Amino acid sequence: MSKTNRGNFLEDFRLGQILRHATPRTVTCGDVALYTALYGSRFAVQSAASFAGSVGLGRDGHAPLDDLLVFHVVFGKSVPDISLNAVANLGYAGGRFGAPVYPGDTLDAVSEVIGIKENSNRQTGVVYVRTTGRTQRGAVAVEYVRWVMVRKRDPEAVLAETRVPELPGAVAAADLIVPAGLDLASYDDTLAGSPYRWDDYQPGEKIDHVDGVTIEEAEHMMATRLWQNTARVHFNQFSESQGRFGRRLIYGGHVLSLARALSFNGLGNAFRLAAINGGRHANPTFAGDTLFAWSEVLERIELPGRTDVGALRLRLVATRNQPCDAFPLLAANGRDTDPAVVLDFDYTVLMPRR
Amino acid sequence: MSKTNRGNFLEDFRLGQILRHATPRTVTCGDVALYTALYGSRFAVQSAASFAGSVGLGRDGHAPLDDLLVFHVVFGKSVPDISLNAVANLGYAGGRFGAPVYPGDTLDAVSEVIGIKENSNRQTGVVYVRTTGRTQRGAVAVEYVRWVMVRKRDPEAVLAETRVPELPGAVAAADLIVPAGLDLASYDDTLAGSPYRWDDYQPGEKIDHVDGVTIEEAEHMMATRLWQNTARVHFNQFSESQGRFGRRLIYGGHVLSLARALSFNGLGNAFRLAAINGGRHANPTFAGDTLFAWSEVLERIELPGRTDVGALRLRLVATRNQPCDAFPLLAANGRDTDPAVVLDFDYTVLMPRR
Amino acid sequence: MSKTNRGNFLEDFRLGQILRHATPRTVTCGDVALYTALYGSRFAVQSAASFAGSVGLGRDGHAPLDDLLVFHVVFGKSVPDISLNAVANLGYAGGRFGAPVYPGDTLDAVSEVIGIKENSNRQTGVVYVRTTGRTQRGAVAVEYVRWVMVRKRDPEAVLAETRVPELPGAVAAADLIVPAGLDLASYDDTLAGSPYRWDDYQPGEKIDHVDGVTIEEAEHMMATRLWQNTARVHFNQFSESQGRFGRRLIYGGHVLSLARALSFNGLGNAFRLAAINGGRHANPTFAGDTLFAWSEVLERIELPGRTDVGALRLRLVATRNQPCDAFPLLAANGRDTDPAVVLDFDYTVLMPRR
Repeated sequence: MSKTNRGNFLEDFRLGQILRHATPRTVTCGDVALYTALYGSRFAVQSAASFAGSVGLGRDGHAPLDDLLVFHVVFGKSVPDISLNAVANLGYAGGRFGAPVYPGDTLDAVSEVIGIKENSNRQTGVVYVRTTGRTQRGAVAVEYVRWVMVRKRDPEAVLAETRVPELPGAVAAADLIVPAGLDLASYDDTLAGSPYRWDDYQPGEKIDHVDGVTIEEAEHMMATRLWQNTARVHFNQFSESQGRFGRRLIYGGHVLSLARALSFNGLGNAFRLAAINGGRHANPTFAGDTLFAWSEVLERIELPGRTDVGALRLRLVATRNQPCDAFPLLAANGRDTDPAVVLDFDYTVLMPRR
Repeated sequence: MSKTNRGNFLEDFRLGQILRHATPRTVTCGDVALYTALYGSRFAVQSAASFAGSVGLGRDGHAPLDDLLVFHVVFGKSVPDISLNAVANLGYAGGRFGAPVYPGDTLDAVSEVIGIKENSNRQTGVVYVRTTGRTQRGAVAVEYVRWVMVRKRDPEAVLAETRVPELPGAVAAADLIVPAGLDLASYDDTLAGSPYRWDDYQPGEKIDHVDGVTIEEAEHMMATRLWQNTARVHFNQFSESQGRFGRRLIYGGHVLSLARALSFNGLGNAFRLAAINGGRHANPTFAGDTLFAWSEVLERIELPGRTDVGALRLRLVATRNQPCDAFPLLAANGRDTDPAVVLDFDYTVLMPRR
Repeated sequence: MSKTNRGNFLEDFRLGQILRHATPRTVTCGDVALYTALYGSRFAVQSAASFAGSVGLGRDGHAPLDDLLVFHVVFGKSVPDISLNAVANLGYAGGRFGAPVYPGDTLDAVSEVIGIKENSNRQTGVVYVRTTGRTQRGAVAVEYVRWVMVRKRDPEAVLAETRVPELPGAVAAADLIVPAGLDLASYDDTLAGSPYRWDDYQPGEKIDHVDGVTIEEAEHMMATRLWQNTARVHFNQFSESQGRFGRRLIYGGHVLSLARALSFNGLGNAFRLAAINGGRHANPTFAGDTLFAWSEVLERIELPGRTDVGALRLRLVATRNQPCDAFPLLAANGRDTDPAVVLDFDYTVLMPRR
């Protein structure tokens, strides 16, 4: 019998199944530096221990890690069990960021199967999981629901049980987590790089993030390996040259981090991710593509008991080879997604108030 | 009104203006490892805590960071305010390295506008700034003057005041900073990788650094993002394909660090940068180019009160796709720069004496 | 006289010569993160301080470094003295891993010339060296024999002495080093990512590691520079375009680390390298190639006095652009190596027993 992990197929999942994922991972300042090199992120809280300390988020001379770095590490752990045989990563919902994570912390990940459903073609189906990443202290760092289309090993196999879970809507204000110790009284807009605070953003406002960034094969593969994400479509040109696209696909999270870094230009004080309300990778991205991004302010949320910090619910849209001055979203038919759109992401950030 | 930073144009600068740049940055051993991966530098003082400790430059089990790493971080901070709309980075002068920087230190940067002048075409002009990078302790890590050609937003705009500053000449011996605690009595030439000390170099001596290194897109973009340098010409192939060169331009500092790393072969004991006397990026560099470098010893400088350490003023010339055994510098007309030359850099290093 | 190191030629080596290599190197969590980004390794002991601690290998909140990372750093130090003028890296033998290495440790390297022989063409010869890497505590981290084909400076030069050393066979069970403090009583197979232990592997068993990974120029150059390995054939497309292959050659150790990372899928509990019994880079590898790998279990070795841990002697074979489901090794003539095989590596790992 082969000792090689070929991954789980649709009929291998069971409702309520708990998967403790392999390879706990100590994150360090090495990961932080690589995150900066790969994405060029400039949020001051994550960039400087001194700035993090000035808002109550320093720890042992360290700034907290970028929230998406934490997300990617946790996501990566789930891949060998959940999505090695995935056809597509269909969506995210109900995501919430908890305790900030610091260099030296160790992350592990557990997933629960909360839904499973066969497609009518009987070749594939959809698995819904809730994945939770925790630090060595047991604190939840991030949790989210995702659903993926997975192949069946045997089209004739019959699922023991079928269930499509009710997907959570946007995370409610009362459920957003404000990191313990956060105090924005001394928040320095100049050092942060943006004069705009929570109060300055209006629901419906759209922001073109202007800049574009071209993706190289070496970059997305280094990133995806850094997250120990083993999904095969990202790494193997020999087999992908005979695949659907003839190319290696770029991990959707790589696109997400690039778009978030681009969004600094216009949202420089969005210093902390609080929630992932929903999101999908609308189209594949390939090396050589140049990414652009724009944002829409969906909602301005007051946080219970806080006057120094508020939340903004944002839609972050990324495109390939298409500048965003016209805020591309829908195709000419007004119904489908514009084929240039690669990411449509609904998330909530924390931002200082005036 | 757009919340996106479109950068300053010529008429936005004022003589005497102080710009506190955004995004303080804690540098770590992650940056050190990336610097090694990107440039392959081999200077022993920066490579090993033990070696740094043997010459009085260790701190808390760390070696100091490469001086150019510090320069790039400080330079990068100044880009969003100074050179986002730059047409060209024209030159450096009066640069001086101060306190060594260690993993865990946080750097910030401030620039003063010391000169401003419109070009006769009224479309562009030149801004001169003195940029200072400091650690969280307030110690000056590096300071330098640079001048850039910047676009005007409005060709009709009239500058409030014009001034071309007197540019500093080579940094004088008395102004060079020898790091506190430096003691070269135990300097080990074998571990350092070179038998040649200060006394062995003669003014006028030229050294071909022999080796060549080919640059890839992924490398220069990762480096430039690591320094949080946001200049657009480096990242966006979509727009650059319609630009002057049809290609992404490589950050001049990337070329500088590659040339400095090549110069180890012949200058292996030049363990510390003390001054940037002048320098310019003579021609653009692109991915796929192979860099070569040579050096000329311009001056051998005794340092007041020191017999263990001296300074060498060096000219470092880098070429693209042109080996340096013939020390290329001037074009056939004997006046212009050889089109293969991409960097002409005048700097001062510290080196152990016999 | 040139101050540039042109490297040693065959006639520069002397039997019994000791070469203290330059550039001691402090390894850090920056190197660890880059190792993960470059190779995607997932062995839990090296990935998480908590997991390392659970088996007695944690130190100061750190996991030990990947054994091959240590090997590459030590190997890299030897290049400027041993193999700058190498035509080919012919083989390894008698390699042994000693004390685990942790972030913050400083490595240095010394080689002894144990053999030298001229080839009949008088243009080249073979040098045999035993290289030893030690930490700042003086503990041996790794030692191994390698032999390289080196050019002569002068074909007429006569060697003072000729000797072909007896090459060591596979490292004996009694000579394998089990790290001090190792205790596998709490080893967690689920977190480690593999249910298979030492007892489950049978001599003669072959494992196809299934996955493939395509190599990019930026990756192998960043890796090779990270190890401060200066061999010229890896970096200079300008000169290599006129060379044997018209391409930059990939450092054989880069291929080795990629193959070892691929082997996680099937050998996930092979948590520690104990010996390099032999190995050779059978064919060159180039950017754009997709690597695959397979392993054969050569021997199951009981370790004196241990019931929690055993050793497996393994053959690791890597191929380019050739999946390994048919375990490719020999060419059609049944005698030569299959031209798709790029690595044939005989090594010994430690693995938990039931």
